[in-house]
Amino acid sequence: MPKISIKGLQMPESPIRKLVPYAEAATAQGRKIYQLNIGQPDIKTPEGALDAVKNHNIEVLSYSHSAGFESYRKKLAKYYQKTSIPVDKNEIIITTGGSEALLFAMGSITDPGDEVIIPEPFYANYNGFATASGVSIKPIQSNIDNGFALPPISEFEKLISEKTKAILICNPGNPTGYLYTEEEIKQLADLAIKHDLFIVSDEVYREFAYDGAVHHSIMSIPELADHAIMVDSVSKRYSMCGARIGCLVSKNKEVIATAMKFAQARLSPPTFAQIASEAALDTPEEYFNEVIEEYTFRRNLLVEGLERIEGVKVAKPKGAFYCIAELPVENADDFAKWLLESFEDNNETIMVAPAAGFYSTPNTGNNQVRIAYVLKKEDLERAIVILEKALKEYNR
Amino acid sequence: MPKISIKGLQMPESPIRKLVPYAEAATAQGRKIYQLNIGQPDIKTPEGALDAVKNHNIEVLSYSHSAGFESYRKKLAKYYQKTSIPVDKNEIIITTGGSEALLFAMGSITDPGDEVIIPEPFYANYNGFATASGVSIKPIQSNIDNGFALPPISEFEKLISEKTKAILICNPGNPTGYLYTEEEIKQLADLAIKHDLFIVSDEVYREFAYDGAVHHSIMSIPELADHAIMVDSVSKRYSMCGARIGCLVSKNKEVIATAMKFAQARLSPPTFAQIASEAALDTPEEYFNEVIEEYTFRRNLLVEGLERIEGVKVAKPKGAFYCIAELPVENADDFAKWLLESFEDNNETIMVAPAAGFYSTPNTGNNQVRIAYVLKKEDLERAIVILEKALKEYNR
Ligand SMILES: Cc1ncc(COP(=O)(O)O)c(C=O)c1O
Ligand SMILES: Cc1ncc(COP(=O)(O)O)c(C=O)c1O
Repeated sequence: MPKISIKGLQMPESPIRKLVPYAEAATAQGRKIYQLNIGQPDIKTPEGALDAVKNHNIEVLSYSHSAGFESYRKKLAKYYQKTSIPVDKNEIIITTGGSEALLFAMGSITDPGDEVIIPEPFYANYNGFATASGVSIKPIQSNIDNGFALPPISEFEKLISEKTKAILICNPGNPTGYLYTEEEIKQLADLAIKHDLFIVSDEVYREFAYDGAVHHSIMSIPELADHAIMVDSVSKRYSMCGARIGCLVSKNKEVIATAMKFAQARLSPPTFAQIASEAALDTPEEYFNEVIEEYTFRRNLLVEGLERIEGVKVAKPKGAFYCIAELPVENADDFAKWLLESFEDNNETIMVAPAAGFYSTPNTGNNQVRIAYVLKKEDLERAIVILEKALKEYNR
Repeated sequence: MPKISIKGLQMPESPIRKLVPYAEAATAQGRKIYQLNIGQPDIKTPEGALDAVKNHNIEVLSYSHSAGFESYRKKLAKYYQKTSIPVDKNEIIITTGGSEALLFAMGSITDPGDEVIIPEPFYANYNGFATASGVSIKPIQSNIDNGFALPPISEFEKLISEKTKAILICNPGNPTGYLYTEEEIKQLADLAIKHDLFIVSDEVYREFAYDGAVHHSIMSIPELADHAIMVDSVSKRYSMCGARIGCLVSKNKEVIATAMKFAQARLSPPTFAQIASEAALDTPEEYFNEVIEEYTFRRNLLVEGLERIEGVKVAKPKGAFYCIAELPVENADDFAKWLLESFEDNNETIMVAPAAGFYSTPNTGNNQVRIAYVLKKEDLERAIVILEKALKEYNR
């Protein structure tokens, strides 16, 4: 039998997927599970986007431009211009989800063996895209005690080598919910310019900033024009995860030209999803206001609920819809499995994502979990009660 | 300014794209271009597929299963079973086009530096997926004089090294239109078993077999169960190129498990497109009969037309919708550019794909072009007339 490659075998398994068989077994036994483990919002997709697809008048469903519909890129450029990102349509490549934009970015700026520095904990699929591109991730630890703020620049400088091509940040962060300050973004910009590095900024949660906080995009710093690559997506903004539309944005012409070669090799992004995404740009402002209000409410509910539980520490998120909580357990992985295998309260339990999978450094975050606040009020309240009871029973 | 990587720079440009600026300039001058250069069929997409999308009742457009809808995989497995491919839903991963299936296949079975043997001329984007995966392509030449039949197995054996992981074939072939015989598939199977190699078979044109010829899938050989990986797509079968749905099929559990890690990293294939693709499976048999009849007609028209032109040699295709023609010119690349820049007949011209870009060996196929017979009768007839006149003028 022929051999699967080491690269293939080394593709890391997502920390969320590992628990799926246990969840399936629990469901099969008739147990209800509150899913706090995935970033799948329950928010309704804007009707305008869904209707645009219903009203399509396609007869031959042909390939689109490899960079995506020109009309969509034009409208998207206007959207960014309003958020003080000065880009035009030729600086945008529409991709199949932010996921593909991440893959194109890594492929364009790295060779096998190159290194990318990423503050941890980070979105676990960065591991997959790095492995697929033959790139090593150099993690730099951020800390729950200051809400996972940017680590000191001196720590980054310790890690920079000949092979370092980029720093990858997620702003606001999954799994941390941390929103970088203007000062932090400036520090990163100076660092990138000093060492001639790219900054890849994953801004797929860019609209999810709470308490009136302002999101500072890496794209809004003029001096960084040649260094900055932004990754964005419609998945979370419009609760359109299944569309599979994102984009790669850069003012560096060589980056765009190179990423376009990757884009051309795969021909085009999905057409129906582009129709939906273009229409989504007309979503009325109230939609977002309501969504932000809802998430702010849920975040407050969750954080206050968690803080009331003995032994639980939580970093109050300023953005996205995740938070990291430290639990009074030694091994959150074991606890998360136990929740699905052995615990029930009124035949109900919860599913959380053990945070160790979001750290690249071994044996880190072992007592932490990531909780996504994507459930509605009553469910979130019930989930917190279940967590409290479960912790008591687990620690007995 | 930070440096783009060598890998990124080495991403080859598609041989078709190179001519696009010339075509745009010609169009801007008001010249009409008959496009024989791309595999974008003009055939209508089945209404059932388009209607299914119009009638969607989605409220929250969420991620689907990373392997694609279970319902779709089940129905697709039945479809394959009818063509004597014994697979079940767990042996299928729905991908974003056949393109992504090719990328997953290469990523799963190779490490950077590994080699894949491919008969040339081959679909040019294999170069892109190989570069993205850090894999070297070892080409093995097939020949216009026997219609681009499988090269002798001894030629493959000369190329097999420690680093060889797979043989990649395209059946029927783009750009050759060649359909492998049962005997050739058996020879490849024996070779793969003898040397413990994978056979990756790109069968995205599997339904396009003419003159009653039978398509022999690599998946229909029981002894090859652990070696065979099939790549398929809805793009051509249902004229649904813009959907971006394909699949990777293998009975090798390790291949599926590894490819699933790539699939999970990118979350899911596009939802609307899956709805269309699942519905497309109910397309009535007449649709295909008509399509095959139409392409057979066009092929005959094209091949007879080309054979009537002095100095033109053509390999009569048995499948897909391309053929390679040898022209009485030294440099088809130059000729193709000249057609767009300097030639017109009644303010009309044609666009063809120079074949050299489909060969991996340098300086090969320089006097060949690939012609896609994706135009309707009158346009194809007119295009042949233009080609004949252009050749006369070019060679004067
Ligand atoms: C931080 C982050 N980046 C990128 C993605 C990829 O999302 P998509 O491919 O749906 O745009 C996700 C999805 O959860 C994410 O959380
Ligand atoms: C031989 C071959 N393989 C794969 C593809 C990829 O097609 P898609 O990604 O649209 O399924 C094509 C498209 O033209 C092709 O010709």
